[in-house]
Amino acid sequence: MQRVCIIGCGAIGSLYAAHLARVTEVWCLVRREEHAQALNREGLRVSGRHKFHVTLKATTRPEDLPDCDLGIVATKAAQVADSIAPVGHHFDGGAIISAQNGLGSEEIIAEHTRGHVIRGTTFMSGTKHSDTNVQYELDTATWLGPFEPRATPYATVEQAAELIVSGGLKAEALHDARPAQWSKLIFNASVNGVSALTGLPHSPHFADESDFGGLGHLLHELINEGKRVAAAAGVELHQDPWEMNKIGAMTNHPPSMLYDVRHQLPTEIDFLSGAIAREASRVGVPAPLHTAVYRLIKGKEAAWTFQDENSPVAIQRTAH
Amino acid sequence: MQRVCIIGCGAIGSLYAAHLARVTEVWCLVRREEHAQALNREGLRVSGRHKFHVTLKATTRPEDLPDCDLGIVATKAAQVADSIAPVGHHFDGGAIISAQNGLGSEEIIAEHTRGHVIRGTTFMSGTKHSDTNVQYELDTATWLGPFEPRATPYATVEQAAELIVSGGLKAEALHDARPAQWSKLIFNASVNGVSALTGLPHSPHFADESDFGGLGHLLHELINEGKRVAAAAGVELHQDPWEMNKIGAMTNHPPSMLYDVRHQLPTEIDFLSGAIAREASRVGVPAPLHTAVYRLIKGKEAAWTFQDENSPVAIQRTAH
Repeated sequence: MQRVCIIGCGAIGSLYAAHLARVTEVWCLVRREEHAQALNREGLRVSGRHKFHVTLKATTRPEDLPDCDLGIVATKAAQVADSIAPVGHHFDGGAIISAQNGLGSEEIIAEHTRGHVIRGTTFMSGTKHSDTNVQYELDTATWLGPFEPRATPYATVEQAAELIVSGGLKAEALHDARPAQWSKLIFNASVNGVSALTGLPHSPHFADESDFGGLGHLLHELINEGKRVAAAAGVELHQDPWEMNKIGAMTNHPPSMLYDVRHQLPTEIDFLSGAIAREASRVGVPAPLHTAVYRLIKGKEAAWTFQDENSPVAIQRTAH
Repeated sequence: MQRVCIIGCGAIGSLYAAHLARVTEVWCLVRREEHAQALNREGLRVSGRHKFHVTLKATTRPEDLPDCDLGIVATKAAQVADSIAPVGHHFDGGAIISAQNGLGSEEIIAEHTRGHVIRGTTFMSGTKHSDTNVQYELDTATWLGPFEPRATPYATVEQAAELIVSGGLKAEALHDARPAQWSKLIFNASVNGVSALTGLPHSPHFADESDFGGLGHLLHELINEGKRVAAAAGVELHQDPWEMNKIGAMTNHPPSMLYDVRHQLPTEIDFLSGAIAREASRVGVPAPLHTAVYRLIKGKEAAWTFQDENSPVAIQRTAH
């Protein structure tokens, strides 16, 4: 794996790009022209748990990209289709990792490349301070496994994991990555939905089962519902999402969907509670709570453009 | 029923006070001193469907209030306890109507008076333009019936209804007011919760069942769940809450709980989805969706005082 392309350089994409650029040729495909120019001019600096600086190549133009041995799609789930469509053919002879939250990104990637698709799940975290500076925070592993419908060879998964490890990040090749992906899916779907609907970040409320109104009851029920769907889909979980939630509840970190609704950005709900609801329907088990969360977040997104008579926007409109 | 006291003069309380003051002596018990002074000085003007002006008496002091033949508690549900506690004895020889949304206000009123408690449900609506001007909008009836545990005589209910009608409002005495109260409860709980969580007012979304993500599905399921709880509690509904929701969805009126969450005011959730969840538990049927809505709104209320590291308040705090 001589040449790697990172598609989307937010915090996670920047961490992959910088670490891999220490050991191989790295290209970054980004959306903003000034982002590409800054990366080409200044390279990428990592702070936090690791401290180093690398140079690498960046572009916004699919036609500039050479064919690559490995790709990592690190955009948000909702942007996967648009970002992979024009460049998928550059990976026809290689492999490409999905690093999105939730379910469904592998299927989208596979539609646009003939390469080997790798099911990726990452728990590492970072903060992007600028286009050329990313802070490495949580150094948890990236779990990699074959995307089953594409029959990706396990040896290819191992090569990708070894390359990431040689760059200084943690990665683990698994014969079946679904137990890890589903553990994170159930945890993520449950906390992101509740956080976006209440406005609470990860907080002690999420594990509070001390009285009837406690949000911990709701989180527990959402997680149990997700576990029943996983079991019906034949997936044995890698970690217990309720234990993950209890750890999360000790932080006060705002989940990404809370950030999204605060800034009225499209959420990843289709890939989180929406994915659990779809899988539940496919395998024939009920998922009323994730389905309710899915519809409420869809309604919230609709509210950003639908204004009632007493909303600030409508009052302003009337005043003109 | 010679002397009436209206407790709480928002839009609904002001409509009762003004109309009754045309036919009997009316006292208004309000919280703000300037509200009482304005009413004593200027009286109360009704606009909209009815147009007239009346004089009446107002006070903020429980000790100023004389004993009354009839009271109407027209505060929000969350304020009933505080408002009735100091004045309940003035109705020991009379009757007192609850006009709150949801379930549970009658029980609170009964704790503080020996008078006859009347179960009231109103659908009329108005807009309060100032402390002395209220616009009469929806001229739907107030339904009145005995509060069963207090064995209120039906004749007393009829007298109260006749007095309201003589003032020019619509009212109906019922031998059992629970079918009306529960119809409104189920409708109100379902639309208020969904509205407060999504930010959408009554809108076409609430009846949209055209695709899987449509909020109409969720409203329908919340309403069906409420109907099952009503049936298990032995209440046969007066009107179909789903039909009420379909009419509501043709307006773009913001329900009161949307107003509350926009202004970070305590909501009526304990008397709406919270009441359905409690009743469900009492009669032994499941109500997972109203219970989830209850916990989410409780979490939303908690979020107003719990701030995470990236919230605007915390950033401001850090900047100091």
